Order: sequence, then structure tokens, then C-alpha cells
Amino acid sequence: MAALAVTLSACTPPATTGEDAPVSRPVHQLATTAAYDVAAIAPYGGDHAGVYEYIDANLDDHVAALQRWLRQPSISAQDVGVIDMAEMLRQDLAQIGFEEAELVPTDGHPGVWGYYDAGAEKTLVVYLMYDVQPVEPEDWISPPFDAEIIDHDLGRVLMARGATNQKGPQRAFLNALESIIAVEGTLPVNIMVAAEGEEELGSPHYPQIIDAYQDRLRQADGVLFPFNSQTPDGKINMILGVKGILYFEVIATGGAWGGPSRAEIHGSYKAIVDSPVWRLIKALSSLTSEDGNTILVPGYYDGILPPTEEESMLINAGIENRDEAQLLEMLAVDHWIDNLSGTEAMVEFLYQPSLNIDGIWGGYTGEGVKTILPHQASAKVDSRLPPGLDPDEALDKIRKYLDEKGYGDIEIRKLSGYPASQTSVEAPAVQAAISVFSKYASEINVQPRIAGSAPFYQFTERLGLPLVPTGMGFGTGAHAPNEIMLIEPGDGIAAAGLADIEKAYVDFVFALADAEE
Amino acid sequence: MAALAVTLSACTPPATTGEDAPVSRPVHQLATTAAYDVAAIAPYGGDHAGVYEYIDANLDDHVAALQRWLRQPSISAQDVGVIDMAEMLRQDLAQIGFEEAELVPTDGHPGVWGYYDAGAEKTLVVYLMYDVQPVEPEDWISPPFDAEIIDHDLGRVLMARGATNQKGPQRAFLNALESIIAVEGTLPVNIMVAAEGEEELGSPHYPQIIDAYQDRLRQADGVLFPFNSQTPDGKINMILGVKGILYFEVIATGGAWGGPSRAEIHGSYKAIVDSPVWRLIKALSSLTSEDGNTILVPGYYDGILPPTEEESMLINAGIENRDEAQLLEMLAVDHWIDNLSGTEAMVEFLYQPSLNIDGIWGGYTGEGVKTILPHQASAKVDSRLPPGLDPDEALDKIRKYLDEKGYGDIEIRKLSGYPASQTSVEAPAVQAAISVFSKYASEINVQPRIAGSAPFYQFTERLGLPLVPTGMGFGTGAHAPNEIMLIEPGDGIAAAGLADIEKAYVDFVFALADAEE
Repeated sequence: MAALAVTLSACTPPATTGEDAPVSRPVHQLATTAAYDVAAIAPYGGDHAGVYEYIDANLDDHVAALQRWLRQPSISAQDVGVIDMAEMLRQDLAQIGFEEAELVPTDGHPGVWGYYDAGAEKTLVVYLMYDVQPVEPEDWISPPFDAEIIDHDLGRVLMARGATNQKGPQRAFLNALESIIAVEGTLPVNIMVAAEGEEELGSPHYPQIIDAYQDRLRQADGVLFPFNSQTPDGKINMILGVKGILYFEVIATGGAWGGPSRAEIHGSYKAIVDSPVWRLIKALSSLTSEDGNTILVPGYYDGILPPTEEESMLINAGIENRDEAQLLEMLAVDHWIDNLSGTEAMVEFLYQPSLNIDGIWGGYTGEGVKTILPHQASAKVDSRLPPGLDPDEALDKIRKYLDEKGYGDIEIRKLSGYPASQTSVEAPAVQAAISVFSKYASEINVQPRIAGSAPFYQFTERLGLPLVPTGMGFGTGAHAPNEIMLIEPGDGIAAAGLADIEKAYVDFVFALADAEE
Repeated sequence: MAALAVTLSACTPPATTGEDAPVSRPVHQLATTAAYDVAAIAPYGGDHAGVYEYIDANLDDHVAALQRWLRQPSISAQDVGVIDMAEMLRQDLAQIGFEEAELVPTDGHPGVWGYYDAGAEKTLVVYLMYDVQPVEPEDWISPPFDAEIIDHDLGRVLMARGATNQKGPQRAFLNALESIIAVEGTLPVNIMVAAEGEEELGSPHYPQIIDAYQDRLRQADGVLFPFNSQTPDGKINMILGVKGILYFEVIATGGAWGGPSRAEIHGSYKAIVDSPVWRLIKALSSLTSEDGNTILVPGYYDGILPPTEEESMLINAGIENRDEAQLLEMLAVDHWIDNLSGTEAMVEFLYQPSLNIDGIWGGYTGEGVKTILPHQASAKVDSRLPPGLDPDEALDKIRKYLDEKGYGDIEIRKLSGYPASQTSVEAPAVQAAISVFSKYASEINVQPRIAGSAPFYQFTERLGLPLVPTGMGFGTGAHAPNEIMLIEPGDGIAAAGLADIEKAYVDFVFALADAEE
């Protein structure tokens, strides 16, 4: 595809926040009304019947392989089971036939590197994350690390922390590789595995893993992130980009500005003692408009890249198939901000930075009455960053703004940050994925981006490789209780079960081997 | 004393908050520059040598009686040990010789009623609270319910939750009564005990206890609240009033206004989904000025009574002896709000309502990174109410203000509330207390009020009885870790130990019997 036209965004007239301070954020417009035509890509024509049969014959073992991974906790935030999971992944790679399978030391949890030399022309990098989010076990209907197969409206599902985010689809992909090797003797492409155990922490040390292998990685042809891309009705959602993220804590403590600095004091002193909790509330409040949806930090929206022509065409193609009401119902959300809908909501979702409070705490939070003036209050905040907004620049702007507002005492503790990532739909790995999906699925939506984050910039922006987070299959409950991955669809459920998920991965590997540069 | 002059307060010119909204709160002025002369009250001349000797001879048993109470947890907020403590108090009263000693059912934790009939002319009501604040055991250097005697800079102290707030001084008072009876055969006054187990919850059911005995209580001559009134250097601080309190939770939940209503959702949705955490922050922030110190709720300051002439004279008498620097250091506070000091700080402390955030919570508050958009966020808030500001009126004003600001969805859940209480220094019970203190202590400060709260209005405003929270002795750490009561002062510590505390209570009971109406 030729160089894409860039259309600069227009700004809305200033609105107002609270009483009277002018506030605005850019409103992005699509660059074209044309829609991308996925149907123009021919379905993948290859047939690997022997491998498919092998998968069907060994499906129980393949389910057991997912369960083995899911029963090994690997909560990076709490350092629970992390090393054991890294070692399990390393051993699995060696057992599959990776000549290189080794832990990669970092300043945090180790990475895992693997190399399978097929003597092939092409090389596929597989990005894996072996860590999972924390759990609140009491909220689960089946314990999060039991990884039981349970009956569900959708069919038979695996319920576990990490079932869909991301161990389930990842181990399904390795099952596919194992099956090809078992039947064909080797793979049609070389494979590089570059796994980390800190994705849920914001991938603070993933750059160190890439550092160690960057010259070899740069020679590869594309990057796969195994991912359950289907909805229950079988539609495929491919995503070609992610937002970056900045995650930090904001901490107000008593000190020279006022307030108790050592410990909580009796609440009655509030009449003459400043409150760190009020200070936190006022400092946080200064960051956004009255509705919490426009970031007031000067220049925060300045460098954000508006939709390109390619991205606009993808959005136009996808919007007609988007079931907005279903999504709102699933999230238990009455309406989007500003009552946006359709294309406007999608553009807002994908092209705006957000400022979200993940958690806030301070003082007495138990039952009943306790009257104290706390000496400290804290919040966890994340900002999702579209392309054009760098995490360090974003943090600098927030710090400078708080300083100018007189909140120099407010501490900001950065926990993670990395920029956005974007891959073109024209990349051979993406075209290969679409051709495989066209063989299996009736509807394929290719989204230019999701609002979530992953450290894909390490491959796309840093190494110049296309990255495709993709795969058949359905899962839900990432970062929430009762996370599941569909294993065997029930009646009327069109999403793939584990066998078809693995067969599609088989096809993808072969399709990439055949793809033209 | 003749009817006291009331001087209306003057208002400061409007200041500003945040960008430009006008904000002001009243600045109260004292009604006179004259000072109350405590030295004009003659020291108590009675001598009860036999009782004093009995106390000295039985001091070990008396310490053990305090420990027995302190080792019985009675955390009203968590319903830990409450009934056992009520029963322990009831049995102790019966054992001392109270003809009536019974639990008083309420809709919450039970009260305890006791009546000792001395056939005397005068009757003293004793207000007791048998509950204590919750604890964070890991912050204590000696376990909070071990009630060990430990060596301290001040001498030998009892360390326990409730040591000074309020079991220690209360049991010391009962030790004094026991000693009088042991030596004299009976008491010089009749005693009514009206105890509750919900003071730390805001005394929600204390009115029910008073209801049950109000006709008899109304016949009494005054009310004592046993209280450690000394500083370590021996100075007495008497307090004649307390602020009222309103305690409530503020809860923001996703719903028709926006935001997720059922459970947390993935944080990346913030770009198009409203946040209940931001909503809570904005709603709370609307309640106060930028510094958190002026309440923006219309009419909140309207009915507050300014200093009377008597109160002004007491403040003038006390201010010269107040060691402000020591208090700031003890609290680890750099300075009072608005850099107030001296009389200005004292008047602000005693005559302004406060709006304090005791706790705030929502979303993920654990270690590390978790990216969620929470569906709910909450805060616990208390407002201390000087005389003239009723808790229900205060709550109505807050509710109305939030509604008018567009926060009708924000839930307010009232946990407790009662008005302020005030007793005149000229009341016979107060004069009796001062005369006793004059016998033991070199310096007596009589404060018209503290900023803390207690449900004394039940006696003062409702039954018309004077109430005097008083006693020798020192303690610290109420509502905090490492709460202590001084039992045996070390070298250079002038505050009374347990023996002198009890002797002063003996004198007080006799002084009240002799006081002229």
C-alpha cells in the first residue's frame, strides 16, 4: 500500500468544566468514508489433513496441556509461582524440539527464549506472556487455579485465571506446533519464542529480553501473539495495534504543606489540621474535567496521531458489524461518555488517551465508625496512550502541571510505561492470518487498534516487525473473576473449540511460510 | 452567673478557592478580653485519710481491676467481646454494692444501668462507655489486649486499647467508690450509672438507654464522665463541652448516569466509559474549598453559636498556658491551617464545623499493577458540629447541595449523628471538680469545649444536667496504636499515678455532696 495520507484532527470549540474553566479535547475524524474489503483476500487453500487428524486424536492430551499451565499460578504482581511457570514453559519448549530453550535473566521476573530451527526461509517470532493477573478467589464459582472444565451457556469451558489471558491460546498454539512436528517431522518456518513474566506489571523489563536477542529477532518475518479472536457467534476480531500505557501511583502525605506527617491523628483535629485525603482528592480532581473524561494537563492531546486512511477504512468496514448494545450489556454500562455511539464512540475509544483511577485508598476502610485524620492517601492511575503520546512525556506533563498547580508535595511513583504499537493490514503476516480466518469464519473484522495495552512496540516500533495478535477461539473474564476459554462449543455457538483453534494455527504457520514478501 | 452576653460573629471578606469561586467561612471573635480566674475557687479542704490509706494498701488489686477490663476486648464496630464486657461491668457494679445492676436492651449493643442508694441528698450520674476503637495489632509494641504494665519515658504505664479511652479512668473511679464503701460503709452521694457500648459508633442507641430511666436521671445533680485530664507535667485540662458529630458514607456506583454498574471492567474502557471513582472524587471535591478547609455547602455555617462571654473568659484564661509547639510536635503537624496560632487557632478549633475524610477506598489497592475501571468507590466522612449546627440539618444541607450540583446518584448512608453539648463553669459539679483539682494540681485550664465528640447532649441539652468529664491522670493514644494510661509516674513526671487519681475521685464525690446548689 502506498504511503498513507494523514489528516490532522479538528478541535471542538471549548466546552466548560465545573463552574467556568474552558476545557476541550480533540475530536478526531476519519480520513475517508471508504471501507476496507476483507473479502478481497482469498481464503487459505492449503489442507493439512494429517495434522488435523493428529489434533483430533490427541485432543484430551491437548486440553490437559492447557490445564497443566493454568494450574500453575504465576501472579507477577504478587510473585506467586512465577519461577515455576517460567521453568514449565522452558521445559515444554525443549520437549517440543526447540534447540534453544533458556531462561533470560532480567532485573525482574525472568524471560524465556526459545529457538526452533526448521532450516526454513522464513522465521516467525512468537510473543508469549506467562504471567497472570491477581485473583479474588471468593468471587469465583470454580477456584481460579483448579482449571476445571465446567458446563457453561457456551458449551464446555476451561475456567481459570489465565484461561484466555493468555495461557489458553498460547498453549493451544504450542499444541499446534507439536502436532505439525509429530506428523511432518519439522515446521515450515523457524520459530523464535520471546516470553516474559511481567506483562501484567506493564512489561517493565521486556526491553532487556529483546536486548539479548535483537539482532536475531530483527531478521524475522513477523510476530504472532496467540489470542482468542472470536466472539461466541463466530465473528473474528483482529487487532493490528494497541495503545501504550502509563501506570503510576499518586500519594499525598502530610508534611511542610500541612497535615499529619507521621501517623493518623484524631479526626476532630480536622478543624485546624490540613488533610492529606482532601489534598489527594483536590490534586486528582485538578487532572480532569468535571465528568472525569477530559484530561486538563496542558499539551496532553498535542501529539496524538489521527486516523490514517488505512485505519479509517478498517474502522468503516468494522463498524456496521459492531453490536454496541451487546457490548454495553456485557459491561453493565448504560451508555458511553457524552452519549457517543457508532463510529464516534469507536474513534473516541481508539484515538483518545484516558486517565483512569484503578484504585484509591486511605484511612479507615473497615466496617462502622472510626474517626481519624489519615496522614496519607494514595491512588493507582493509568493512562492509555494512542500513537503519538509517549509515556515519559505524558508523565512529565502531569508532573509539571501538578507542580504549577501548587501540588509539588504530591508524590508520583511510576510503576510502568510503554508506547503504542501499530501494524499495517498489508503486512504479509496479517494477510496470511486473514486468509486463514477466511477459510474458517464467516465474518472478519479487522480493527486498527484496541484500547488495551501490550508491549508490542518492542517488535513494531523498535525492530520494524509486523505483529499480529490473532487466533480462533473465544474467552472472557480477563482481569476479572471467572475467566474462561471455550474448549468445546455448545449447540448454536459458532466460535471454535480447541481442536479448530489448533488447526487454524497450523494453517497460519503454513500460510506464513508461503506468503509473498 | 448572670445571663451571658452573646456576640454575633463577623464574617471575613470572601476568599477564593481553586480558580475563582468565592468562598468564605465565619471568623468568630471572643466576646471579651477578660480572663476567668480559677484561683478564686478555694481548694477542696476535706481530708479522707482512711480512704486514702485503703487505696494505697490495695493498689495492686486496683491495677489488676483495670487490667481485667482492658484484657476483655469490646470493639463495638466489629462486635468483638461486647456482650462479655457489658456483663463484666454489670457484675462489677453488683459486687461493689449497687442495688440495681442490669443490662439495658437497645436496638444495638446493650447498655448497663446501675443504682447505688446511699440514702443521700444528692445524686451523681456517671456516664460510662464500655466499648473501644478497632485495632491494627501489628502497629503495637505490646499487644493491645494484653494490657501489660510497661516501662515508658513517663514511668510505668498500662498499654492497651481502651487504657485511657475510656476503661482506665472509669475503672479507677469505681475503685474509688469501692474504697469509700470499704472504709465508710456507704457513699456520700447516690450514684446512677448509665453506660453504653456504642460510643465509638457514635452512640446511635444511647437515647434508648436514657429513655428507660429519664425520669429518675432528671432528679440527679450532675453527671461525671471519668477522664484523664492531666498533661505529663501535671497541668489539668477540664473540658465543659464537646462538638456534635455527623458520620456518613458517600458511595458512587455506576448506573444511569454512566459507568459500570455490576462489576469492575477492563481499565482500557475508560476512554469511553464514565468512572465511579472520578465521580466520587468530583462529588467530594465539590464539598470543600481547594484547601479542604472551608465547607461549600450553603448555610452550613449559618446557625453556629459564637463564643459567649463565659466561654471567651475561659479561652482567655487558658491560652497563655497552651503549649502549641508541643502539641504540633506530638501530632507531627507542621502548622495549623491558614498558619493560624494562639487564640485564633483555638477559636477555629472549637467553633468551626469540620468536614473530614476518615477513609476512602475503591478498586484495586494491592501491590503492583492492575488495570481496572471499578464500578464503585466509597468514602467515610465525619463532620464535627459546634453548638447551633444540628446533625440532621447538616445532612439535609449536604444532600440538597449534592443534588443541586447534579450528584443525585451519589448515595449518602448516615452511620451516626448527635448534637453538641455545653455545661457552664458555674455549675456546682464543675465548681466541686475545680476545688478538688486545686488541692492536687498547680495549674488548671478550664476549656469551654473540645473539638471531639461524645453524646453528652443526652444529659445537658435533653435533661438539663451539668456534665463534667474530669479526673486526674494522663493517657494518650486514643484511636491510635500504643494507647497508654500512666499508672506510676517516673522521676520528674508531675501527672498523677493511679493512687492519686483514685484519691481525687474520692474527694470529688465528697465535694459534690457538700456543694451548695
